[in-house]
Amino acid sequence: MKLGIFDSGVGGLTVARSLQRSGCFSELLYYGDTARVPYGSKDANTVTRYALEAVEFFNGANVDALVVACNTVSVVALEQMQRYSNKPVYGVLEPGVLALQQMPGITQDARVLVIATRSTIASGEYQQRINALGFHRVEAMATPLFVPIVEEELYDGPILTETFKHYFGGLMRPDVVLLGCTHFPLIDTAISAYFGGAKTIHSGEAMLHWMEQRLDLTARFDNTPIQIMASENVEAVKRVAARWQLQV
Amino acid sequence: MKLGIFDSGVGGLTVARSLQRSGCFSELLYYGDTARVPYGSKDANTVTRYALEAVEFFNGANVDALVVACNTVSVVALEQMQRYSNKPVYGVLEPGVLALQQMPGITQDARVLVIATRSTIASGEYQQRINALGFHRVEAMATPLFVPIVEEELYDGPILTETFKHYFGGLMRPDVVLLGCTHFPLIDTAISAYFGGAKTIHSGEAMLHWMEQRLDLTARFDNTPIQIMASENVEAVKRVAARWQLQV
Repeated sequence: MKLGIFDSGVGGLTVARSLQRSGCFSELLYYGDTARVPYGSKDANTVTRYALEAVEFFNGANVDALVVACNTVSVVALEQMQRYSNKPVYGVLEPGVLALQQMPGITQDARVLVIATRSTIASGEYQQRINALGFHRVEAMATPLFVPIVEEELYDGPILTETFKHYFGGLMRPDVVLLGCTHFPLIDTAISAYFGGAKTIHSGEAMLHWMEQRLDLTARFDNTPIQIMASENVEAVKRVAARWQLQV
Repeated sequence: MKLGIFDSGVGGLTVARSLQRSGCFSELLYYGDTARVPYGSKDANTVTRYALEAVEFFNGANVDALVVACNTVSVVALEQMQRYSNKPVYGVLEPGVLALQQMPGITQDARVLVIATRSTIASGEYQQRINALGFHRVEAMATPLFVPIVEEELYDGPILTETFKHYFGGLMRPDVVLLGCTHFPLIDTAISAYFGGAKTIHSGEAMLHWMEQRLDLTARFDNTPIQIMASENVEAVKRVAARWQLQV
């Protein structure tokens, strides 16, 4: 199975990494809209317009399905993308929520914290779906500063700690943190430690498990080449991919 | 004189504010490319392409001249904008450097720190022009995290302090800090205090003084209406304008 992966920029490489390491796919084609990143603070209309341009791109690409790595896009534009795409399109929202539901030792009494960009949180989509499963202690927090902090590669240290205090200071200590933005897996260790060892849900791992439960992924591949494309500065994206330990 | 002001997003409102308060202009037309902000981490080619679209927009607008508030655009695209524009186009670079040259009590021995986005610093434009004036103690530092921090309205406090330490920890204490990004005037008090009262240069004030020395700005207006337009979410831009005390 050849998979397309769409993201607003480099963040989706964390999803690509999980899929590449699984050995379930013959090829990956990654496209990041680096010329217009970030999406997380932009209008739903604008994000949808950009997402449909990506569908156009993948309609012409030789892949069997399209994974939307970006949470913001998955929230606001998935249905329209599915309508205009000539292949199946999978978003990260449903996988993330499924991972919560299937997490060992986690019941509906668990304290759940969803963190994401401003637009993902404002949509209320994650919160609604999690509530619908019977979880009743759900908090949600937009943590937009984590994105540039991760892009500065400040995966620990005082800036991150102060930013944790700023966003998390008033919150309950969660049992599970749903990382609703592809950048956040880069700081999941620090987030988990801040909350005394809370579990985290990572869009890439969640997508893989979701696909395993829905698609025939029995074929195994010794390596999964990834082709990386971008709307600008593809070399910078490739450098990030190498730093984040994808096999480029 | 009716003035157009172009910026990548909301940051240029600090420039618009200086121009509005001066009483020298009959009208301002502000256009922020909020759908594609930020420019500071993008390719020169991409930024130039976006800047020329803005020229197209202002070519059809009823203004006498165009001010490019964004430092990144002024660095990479000013010449091309001037070529394609049907009216004069002024960038913030030359005004910023002139303000340094004309600053009372500042000699060529002064320690100068230039802070800006990654692309502005990488271009070396500010550094080169300042060196060309005979200043010989010039440091330059890309401080990209200041932009999202300002957009989160964290104008002081521990996140900003830790970010100062991160970027400024290894630097000499400057006599003058050239704020080479339109977001930075919002934290100029904190920057100046961190450096024990260093002077700061602000693109909006610098632009006004530069124009006063080059154009006939003798007419006075009791108020200067500003029309705000944006490539998305113009209401959000207007809210920021109100918070930053423009008369909207």
